Amino acid sequence: MFSVRKLASEPVALEAFAKPACLGKKVSGIKEIAKRARVHHTTVSRVLNPKTRSMVSTEVATRILRIAADLNYKRNVFASGLRTNRSCTVGVVVPDLTNPVFPPIVRAAERTLSKAGYVTIIADADNRRESERAILGSMRSHHVDGLILATALLEDELVKDCQRRNLPMVLVNRELAKDQVTSVVTDDVKGMLLVVEHLKALGHRRLAYLGGPLNTSTGLSRRKGFLAALHALELPIDERIIVNCTSFTEQAGMTGALTLLAGERGFTAIVAGNDMLALGCYAALERGGLACPADISVTGYNDMPFAGRLRPPLTSVHIRHEEIGAQAARLLLMKMQVPDTHLASVYLEPTLMVRASSGKPAK
Amino acid sequence: MFSVRKLASEPVALEAFAKPACLGKKVSGIKEIAKRARVHHTTVSRVLNPKTRSMVSTEVATRILRIAADLNYKRNVFASGLRTNRSCTVGVVVPDLTNPVFPPIVRAAERTLSKAGYVTIIADADNRRESERAILGSMRSHHVDGLILATALLEDELVKDCQRRNLPMVLVNRELAKDQVTSVVTDDVKGMLLVVEHLKALGHRRLAYLGGPLNTSTGLSRRKGFLAALHALELPIDERIIVNCTSFTEQAGMTGALTLLAGERGFTAIVAGNDMLALGCYAALERGGLACPADISVTGYNDMPFAGRLRPPLTSVHIRHEEIGAQAARLLLMKMQVPDTHLASVYLEPTLMVRASSGKPAK
Repeated sequence: MFSVRKLASEPVALEAFAKPACLGKKVSGIKEIAKRARVHHTTVSRVLNPKTRSMVSTEVATRILRIAADLNYKRNVFASGLRTNRSCTVGVVVPDLTNPVFPPIVRAAERTLSKAGYVTIIADADNRRESERAILGSMRSHHVDGLILATALLEDELVKDCQRRNLPMVLVNRELAKDQVTSVVTDDVKGMLLVVEHLKALGHRRLAYLGGPLNTSTGLSRRKGFLAALHALELPIDERIIVNCTSFTEQAGMTGALTLLAGERGFTAIVAGNDMLALGCYAALERGGLACPADISVTGYNDMPFAGRLRPPLTSVHIRHEEIGAQAARLLLMKMQVPDTHLASVYLEPTLMVRASSGKPAK
Repeated sequence: MFSVRKLASEPVALEAFAKPACLGKKVSGIKEIAKRARVHHTTVSRVLNPKTRSMVSTEVATRILRIAADLNYKRNVFASGLRTNRSCTVGVVVPDLTNPVFPPIVRAAERTLSKAGYVTIIADADNRRESERAILGSMRSHHVDGLILATALLEDELVKDCQRRNLPMVLVNRELAKDQVTSVVTDDVKGMLLVVEHLKALGHRRLAYLGGPLNTSTGLSRRKGFLAALHALELPIDERIIVNCTSFTEQAGMTGALTLLAGERGFTAIVAGNDMLALGCYAALERGGLACPADISVTGYNDMPFAGRLRPPLTSVHIRHEEIGAQAARLLLMKMQVPDTHLASVYLEPTLMVRASSGKPAK
């Protein structure tokens, strides 16, 4: 296994994956790779053959594999006969297509893959595990060349099953408990720190938290980030005003927020684990006759489309939707071309979009 | 060709399409169909064989085909050997996944199809024709059993091509110029009449119109509906304040609305052809320093999710997203089971959701 580092700061040029990537056009050969890597062509052959790769140093092998990917080298053209059963199709699975954060991620991935000659098919798992299982079975039987999954759980048997079948795969927005699969995610600890700093600066001291399910990395890492931020900024931690919702949906958010409000714990702001949960807060506040932000400030996470057009416009952690989708597609293109290359996960920096849903605490 | 009428008022019970529809489980046979239709089993055989169907009256044949569909009868189990190459997968193509109106339609279709054992794969054509062409090619090569298309143009070669290949297909939200393919659409003339009546009742007299591309049925029929409503309600028609946008997107809507505002034609309301165009109006008004509805009222169409949470909440024509998706799926299930049955298009009644974006005209 070779680790290609610095990928976040050095995205592979899209041009390397121009049209022929999927269509089997005659591509650059071993001699061209050898020339660019400044090694003998037998070294390239050794690296490209998994059985002899250990004969070459990791550093040289990594360099050769990157050049091979850049040159759009496909092993099956020359030697191994692997992966002749190509469909030129990539499958993307999202947990909830009605959450507006996913369409722009999917679209950016689709545009990048399209330039490389791949068609993208999408499936909505509808937050249901059995649905996801059926989708993955169907996608495999359709011989998709690779998968982008936004559905992963921390411990995910479905992901592991795809791994065992050597299906190239990149996770977006979520990652596994151990970093076994390349992911494109945002730094949630940083994101939550930005939120808590902002609320503290406005004068808030008691912050409630409304998070997502703890079997997802986003549920867990945003909660951890929130707690770490309270600690770092010396704000009180009160477990009674920390609620974990059963899913990242408006309905679950409303239920959770009503629970928080019923507790009468004297908090002045609710930090939500994503924007759909924040919408649930809006609904719960309306139901309780409370105004946002006059009575309670609310913040979201993801800065989904329309967040700025809501009433009130939602303060939210901005994640770079297009960049997440495009990066995931680029990493997947590399994996599909040189399947056993290990690519490090990419962590993108979030920023905070301050809008009218967060204001000074009520007296 | 047999026409199954009254479908809109008599939706096929979902239970008829329970799990086995795709999975090839042993299903009811000719004798059961004959018993229910109160005909001899040879009559059923004649109807089920396209070559001998003309020997039976249209009325009886239609009855038998409906019963066969209800009983989940599959020809290939018994006789023709057609369609043995089933993938248990249905493809859904939408023009713009970032328009929130489509995810709930797709999800409702997916849920209905899932109960019948089908997996749904979705593709986002990104408002690009060449993208749609690649998607349809890929879906066909994956042997999808049927298609639900939300992308159709009035004259649509891609749709006709799928028809020539006898791929079962249902259109949603849009229809062809001639009713050659079963569609599930909303009555746009009625919808526009509701909008114009509402604005007239508020006191508006000069209404501007911001519509979608005229090569789509929704672009054309909503414009026609708007003009018919002005005529019926004796309001002035001024072609100079009727603009057709190049696509149903916020960006195109903003461009169109800026053109309208620059004309200084003294209108007091803008009727938009869908909610994304209405969002473009919001952006244009903001840019021009105008308030909605104090200076200009704005109405949308589709009542997409979040329409009621916008600032200001958007008055919009409500179309029944879940019903559109579920009906399309039910019709497609019938078509996939008895491919040469002609099913009439379904027109759903719209309603008007009045919210704060429409108010009394400025003095």
